[in-house]
Amino acid sequence: MIIRQGNTGRLSRVLVANGFAFLSGVTARDTTRGVREQTEDILAQVDSYLKAAGADKSRIAVANIWLRDIDTFDEMNNAWDAWVDKECPPARATVESHLAGEDILVEIQVQAAV
Amino acid sequence: MIIRQGNTGRLSRVLVANGFAFLSGVTARDTTRGVREQTEDILAQVDSYLKAAGADKSRIAVANIWLRDIDTFDEMNNAWDAWVDKECPPARATVESHLAGEDILVEIQVQAAV
Amino acid sequence: MIIRQGNTGRLSRVLVANGFAFLSGVTARDTTRGVREQTEDILAQVDSYLKAAGADKSRIAVANIWLRDIDTFDEMNNAWDAWVDKECPPARATVESHLAGEDILVEIQVQAAV
Repeated sequence: MIIRQGNTGRLSRVLVANGFAFLSGVTARDTTRGVREQTEDILAQVDSYLKAAGADKSRIAVANIWLRDIDTFDEMNNAWDAWVDKECPPARATVESHLAGEDILVEIQVQAAV
Repeated sequence: MIIRQGNTGRLSRVLVANGFAFLSGVTARDTTRGVREQTEDILAQVDSYLKAAGADKSRIAVANIWLRDIDTFDEMNNAWDAWVDKECPPARATVESHLAGEDILVEIQVQAAV
Repeated sequence: MIIRQGNTGRLSRVLVANGFAFLSGVTARDTTRGVREQTEDILAQVDSYLKAAGADKSRIAVANIWLRDIDTFDEMNNAWDAWVDKECPPARATVESHLAGEDILVEIQVQAAV
């Protein structure tokens, strides 16, 4: 069985299948802010999406992070390190990509075990 | 058990394991065309690969889309929106990346529940 | 149950959940070398991480490869083709991205069935 939440007609914000929750790429609601603030906003949304799927950040299997400018790696990590469950962190990869809007500085996509 | 289809010796076009079908990144067969046409071509190939794995587009868990130019986001979405199962869309993330050929404007990779 | 190895407090080098091993993005230990050598170094690390998870390269479901310069695609593939199990290759996608350091020319992330 496949369960979807936040169906926009184009994508599902969360999709659960075969023991995993797949999230769509999350960007900040307020993209006038800097990298740290955008990351904090994204991670709060991730918490909310995971809760809706019956999971939490300690159950993230893998996170993919895109930065508009890879030189903001440390700034993103300031927010990440304050948020992540240090006993239970996911696998992760971070690369640079321009995103769907010049002011979108960070995008994060996660997959969790549910 | 792991099942592979379209083994090129370098990669498998489709690999099925533990209830999921993993597709390699798909690019258009005719890369002289524009973003919308390349996307349509890719999605037709995705349909075919999913059918071979015993699935269909309503069972895609997550799609990752790379655009050579993120400013073609709307043009890609024209083809996507005409194709996607609006009742059953996957999680999705779209970012910009140069791809393995200057004329490759779009690449799409999906994972489906089978 | 979720099993983690190589917990850095920020991420897990390997995370096993629901029949899959998820690896963090792997970069070369010696980034003064060229693309072929960096790829060889990365793939040796992937072997090691997979072994620690009770898997091996014949059980990789999907590999994502980022190249700092997509024009090095053939050079990366020289190392990949010499390493991959030609009977049992994974699904794969390769795109261009700047990575977390100017001298990091390749990054590879894999997910394997365990």
